[in-house]
Amino acid sequence: MTTSDVEHGTRRGRSARQAERLARGLETLPYLTRKLAPVEVISTEGLETIEHNADTLLEEVGIEIVNYPEAVEIFRSAGADADGMRVRFPRGLCRSLINASAPRSFTQHARNEARSVVIGDPHMVLVPTYGSPFIHNLDDGRRYATIEDFRSFVKLTYTSRTLHHGGGTLCEPVDLPVNKRHFEMVYSHIRYSDRAFMGSVTHPSRAQDSVEMARIVFGAERMERDHVIMGLANANSPMSWDFNMLGSAKAYASANQIMLITPFILGGAMAPVTVAAQATQTLAEALAGMAFCQIVRPGAPVIFGSFASSMSMQTGAPTFGTPEPQLVLFVLAALARRLGVPFRSGGNFTASKLPDYQAAYESAVSYMATMQAGVNFNLHTAGWLEGGLAVGYEKFILDEDQCGMAGTFVKGVDLSENGQAMDALTTNGPGNHFMGHPHTLRNFETAFYRSTTANNDSYEQWLEQGGLDAAQRATAAWKKRLAEYEAPPIDPGVDEALLDYIARRKAAFPDSDV
Amino acid sequence: MTTSDVEHGTRRGRSARQAERLARGLETLPYLTRKLAPVEVISTEGLETIEHNADTLLEEVGIEIVNYPEAVEIFRSAGADADGMRVRFPRGLCRSLINASAPRSFTQHARNEARSVVIGDPHMVLVPTYGSPFIHNLDDGRRYATIEDFRSFVKLTYTSRTLHHGGGTLCEPVDLPVNKRHFEMVYSHIRYSDRAFMGSVTHPSRAQDSVEMARIVFGAERMERDHVIMGLANANSPMSWDFNMLGSAKAYASANQIMLITPFILGGAMAPVTVAAQATQTLAEALAGMAFCQIVRPGAPVIFGSFASSMSMQTGAPTFGTPEPQLVLFVLAALARRLGVPFRSGGNFTASKLPDYQAAYESAVSYMATMQAGVNFNLHTAGWLEGGLAVGYEKFILDEDQCGMAGTFVKGVDLSENGQAMDALTTNGPGNHFMGHPHTLRNFETAFYRSTTANNDSYEQWLEQGGLDAAQRATAAWKKRLAEYEAPPIDPGVDEALLDYIARRKAAFPDSDV
Repeated sequence: MTTSDVEHGTRRGRSARQAERLARGLETLPYLTRKLAPVEVISTEGLETIEHNADTLLEEVGIEIVNYPEAVEIFRSAGADADGMRVRFPRGLCRSLINASAPRSFTQHARNEARSVVIGDPHMVLVPTYGSPFIHNLDDGRRYATIEDFRSFVKLTYTSRTLHHGGGTLCEPVDLPVNKRHFEMVYSHIRYSDRAFMGSVTHPSRAQDSVEMARIVFGAERMERDHVIMGLANANSPMSWDFNMLGSAKAYASANQIMLITPFILGGAMAPVTVAAQATQTLAEALAGMAFCQIVRPGAPVIFGSFASSMSMQTGAPTFGTPEPQLVLFVLAALARRLGVPFRSGGNFTASKLPDYQAAYESAVSYMATMQAGVNFNLHTAGWLEGGLAVGYEKFILDEDQCGMAGTFVKGVDLSENGQAMDALTTNGPGNHFMGHPHTLRNFETAFYRSTTANNDSYEQWLEQGGLDAAQRATAAWKKRLAEYEAPPIDPGVDEALLDYIARRKAAFPDSDV
Repeated sequence: MTTSDVEHGTRRGRSARQAERLARGLETLPYLTRKLAPVEVISTEGLETIEHNADTLLEEVGIEIVNYPEAVEIFRSAGADADGMRVRFPRGLCRSLINASAPRSFTQHARNEARSVVIGDPHMVLVPTYGSPFIHNLDDGRRYATIEDFRSFVKLTYTSRTLHHGGGTLCEPVDLPVNKRHFEMVYSHIRYSDRAFMGSVTHPSRAQDSVEMARIVFGAERMERDHVIMGLANANSPMSWDFNMLGSAKAYASANQIMLITPFILGGAMAPVTVAAQATQTLAEALAGMAFCQIVRPGAPVIFGSFASSMSMQTGAPTFGTPEPQLVLFVLAALARRLGVPFRSGGNFTASKLPDYQAAYESAVSYMATMQAGVNFNLHTAGWLEGGLAVGYEKFILDEDQCGMAGTFVKGVDLSENGQAMDALTTNGPGNHFMGHPHTLRNFETAFYRSTTANNDSYEQWLEQGGLDAAQRATAAWKKRLAEYEAPPIDPGVDEALLDYIARRKAAFPDSDV
């Protein structure tokens, strides 16, 4: 199913067959299914307190709607109190609007139906990182991203064995004018991949273009029924939503498409420093955003998102891999389950500038919490560097590999007869190894998660192979993947229609960098 | 309290005072206290199944006792069935022996009473890595360890802000004869640190020497009452214990000292490949080892240990940071709670040869599980590289730093009035940042876990400071710590008595490398 295999071609005869058998266990799943119960870090009573406090915030402070009187009217029409730009919500209003129509779970259809994803419990969809203006790799160091980089990350995501969704702004193609980037980004997702993807949200008209391009691929009639494109809106925390975000949300929701509603909180700056307060504010802001979509079009799918980071109290810089944001993540996942909508948070986060020890440690801590909390849609699974300012080619490969462990982890402990293995335990005898035992051989293909980037060889073997560190090995891996990439097929008529749409729209207004 | 501060001396005036205030929050705690409930991955019914299966193993297969007829007799005296080297246990015998006398929790006293540690729920004691014949650092690469390296790791542990216990064989001083290394190792722990520590277990006579040296420091009378030294015994999995291990266990237990009983299992080799089977076998082997100590001396403290790694099914090499060993860890922590003894497992494990992305990712995954599972004594918290074959100087610094996050994590979510921060949330207003809010200022010193090795600066600042990766920054840190090290005081009479004991014992038998 995938087009590359780092180890392919290096083995012969018996070991080649063995490698092939092992590779079968690595086939891409369209998404993961959780058997392990999510980790809970606070009591039901604690969650109720946070819900109560969020309602107090919505009732007393309310949400400021910046430059978007129409959104104030939309909220008012559903029972909110409007006072100029400020909208206040009677207790429970947002929750009841969401509960009345937002789906607990839904399918985002991909161009290749085999790659459609189900978003909601008990599933987990892994998605590459989003929004970086820079790229980093060992050859170039750090530099501004281009549309060619964007295409490369589409291709790496398309050929990934562990990611499930194409993502959105895989990097910012800063070589293109700001107001026309979205055409090339959406086109790249459609043309160079067949996975589900995300459209633009930097202006409502660009959100609308994204939806129109999806209509060319999926058909207008089908899009009234099926969800095929997603937008991501971030609140202007604290307690504020603006025209670009809610206007884009309206474009997606009114077309029955998916909105990911994510307060983006740097604790201590956009919210108080404590875990409970960050969870409270995130819940309040997200409730308002999700309710907005349900008022615009009841039943349009929404995802409750959270992005929370800590910060250095000395410099104000965002910090990652610290314990507080993981606790925020666990709390919000539990709140999303109580609300009954899919949850997005987490990823492989770091403040490091390169794929070093810091980058990996911070990423792994964040990702362990992501795996455990019950996240349904994991934006930022692979590539994130430098607090999101850069996406790394090596980082992408390394994260993409490690995130595969979630497939095993979320399955939990197998207590079947084979899992208990009492036949093996009672017949093997003291002091004898299990390497050749029938139970071991029976489980050979699926036993133990296998990383493709980790080196587990002896020191001497490793040295003989060049003594490379993980990032250096990853350089070879991403180059090989891009070299071997083959585009998925596309209906030539659809391709032509897309290119025609883009050409017409680009000609309709001048380039601009705002 | 600690003698070094990486950032000390680089700040002036206001920022120096700020740094000092922040540093207060970094003072060493003698050990951590958990408020967060441990993570559970299987049901009570599942745990009962594993307990039942372990009893079946002990009853039907039993334990082979290699080269130690006296241990067979000891087991027989308590009700086990002996058949040559094989000892079989009636269902429930081991558990009832342990329940009858093993403490749920106990104190290991340090030479400096302020550094004594409580081992058992709800506490967590962090301990450096154990047993590596090689060291690694960026200057030397990888080479055999010496007694000078051993002393360096004693000093780094003594000056650590986040580790709580001195550990044992911090590295193997392979420049000394095998049969006399223990004298210098135990002496180094006593002389260059004042933390609690572990003695030798490579032969019962060396265990006895370790206990005798502790008697010189703490007094024979006190040692009948207090626990001041610990030994670590690994089973010869599957289902076998030998003379060196049980003989050493007898030396410690009969002196009322602490035994850490740890089956060391490479899944697929020393046990079947499945999680449940590895947990079952670990429980059976540990039950036998802990019961042995309770027969030798009822009430002598024991710790239920588990070391479980996965392996590469292609090469047989041990692998780390994979999901299966984390699941084993969670299951065994739960089994230890049910048994009612302290639990040891986890650490910062990796198969990587150097402190790179692989090393950090694997370590962090292992350590997150360690933090969450309810581990009470965490051997291998800092330094581990190359599957334990090497201890890294930079790895030690990086792990030691990251492991500090457990202090925050295990406290869980603060739902106090200050934690809820409703005053801040309701008075701040939409769109305004919280940087200068009274709530933020009130929580300034304790808000957010602070890593001392992570770089959170801007790319430009980071580049200006040399563009170093985390490992390179850690090189400067360990060198500075060692350069600034000052030994704790010791009673000259005690020191003289120790040196005299060592000189007499060393002269009593020839050097040997077995």
